[in-house]
Amino acid sequence: MPNIKFTISYDGANFRGWQTQPGLRTVQETLEAAIAAVTGEPRMRVNASGRTDSGVHAVGQVVNFHTESKHPAMVLLKAINAHLPDDVVIREASEVPSEFDANRDAIRKLYRYVIHDGPVADVFLRRFACHCKWRLNVEAMRRAALPLLGTHDFHSFETEWPNRATSVRTITHLTVNRVGEYVWIDVEADGFLYNMVRAIAGTLMNVGRGYWPESRVAEIITAEDRREAGPTAPPEGLFLMRVTYAA
Amino acid sequence: MPNIKFTISYDGANFRGWQTQPGLRTVQETLEAAIAAVTGEPRMRVNASGRTDSGVHAVGQVVNFHTESKHPAMVLLKAINAHLPDDVVIREASEVPSEFDANRDAIRKLYRYVIHDGPVADVFLRRFACHCKWRLNVEAMRRAALPLLGTHDFHSFETEWPNRATSVRTITHLTVNRVGEYVWIDVEADGFLYNMVRAIAGTLMNVGRGYWPESRVAEIITAEDRREAGPTAPPEGLFLMRVTYAA
Repeated sequence: MPNIKFTISYDGANFRGWQTQPGLRTVQETLEAAIAAVTGEPRMRVNASGRTDSGVHAVGQVVNFHTESKHPAMVLLKAINAHLPDDVVIREASEVPSEFDANRDAIRKLYRYVIHDGPVADVFLRRFACHCKWRLNVEAMRRAALPLLGTHDFHSFETEWPNRATSVRTITHLTVNRVGEYVWIDVEADGFLYNMVRAIAGTLMNVGRGYWPESRVAEIITAEDRREAGPTAPPEGLFLMRVTYAA
Repeated sequence: MPNIKFTISYDGANFRGWQTQPGLRTVQETLEAAIAAVTGEPRMRVNASGRTDSGVHAVGQVVNFHTESKHPAMVLLKAINAHLPDDVVIREASEVPSEFDANRDAIRKLYRYVIHDGPVADVFLRRFACHCKWRLNVEAMRRAALPLLGTHDFHSFETEWPNRATSVRTITHLTVNRVGEYVWIDVEADGFLYNMVRAIAGTLMNVGRGYWPESRVAEIITAEDRREAGPTAPPEGLFLMRVTYAA
């Protein structure tokens, strides 16, 4: 039974997140319906690298699913894209070994948080960035972010979620860059706690606008207390960019 | 009575064009309502550089209006922006001489037509580009466009419109550029006929995908017959970028 891997993009604005919920429009349910329409397997389930929340976007979410269909992966891509609404698209498709699991086998994920700090809102990109009314100091944000790199208990940066075993994670890459009136916070880690990138973004924005000193971030990590970090930044600025698997 | 000039941006997707029409959501009616809410002048009218059609965007539409308000232009900008929905924004504001007229005094306008010719649709920019399923040859489009430069009767590139005096216009600038999977057609002229940029875009796309020879464009101009040119390209790719006034 072939195992198919898809890389998909979605505009999260009109989805109530990834995971199927009764009566709500979600990416998982939308994608499964389009696949089922093509393969004729109504109870098929797709397995994603992880959930994304309501309003969060994906440039490169990865999913896999098993199907009896004999069509090559690229034929499935074209046929299923024709059944998808215009806010979700399959960008890449391949057949993978039967044991590949998009969730369990992910070794790193890269998220980007996008902030627009221009003086007036951008009518075209308003759905794809968090608007910040203060001009941010990117150099200060960069220095402040340094203590987050590496392996730490990130309990101060998670929204409580039942049954997670540990809040220790390893951030392998964290950069803050300005692109015109946009600030990109890129965070890559071996895994993320619930709302972790949005809590990091809210914290670094507090530093960037001069409300908190740069040294505050190290203190927040040590505190292991969510109340010490900044607010959870809004979902429209967050993009799941890339999921990495062992070669 | 102060004369105020605004430069505004709008996402045209959810507007039925610029001009007020009973019962429809238009940019003019939306902007006038926001200004009236701030100045308390309910019958105020704004005067734009020109109309834009349903679905067409603006990066730099220019308008002017007369008001009894004593507020400086930048104070009006901030107060009125607070009353505008998030798909229209005032980007610049200034007080101008009482005789300034945003429509009559415009000496040039620059439009950009944006085409996405990547193999899969872009979920983020789908509202802001026309998707073309063929990969376009930008060099061929550039050569084909050369005969359009200068002063011509552009009757082959206009949708009929009552009472326009002449279809002679002067194109001062026309470039075709690729930016990754996007092709930008920039056209600047002393004025535009109805649907003129969209007819030029539809014509150049026919050349770019190899359906028409490059030499066809010169023949279309000479024909002075709308049936000779390409189709009117869809509105979502069109942006009014800039309006130029005499110094």
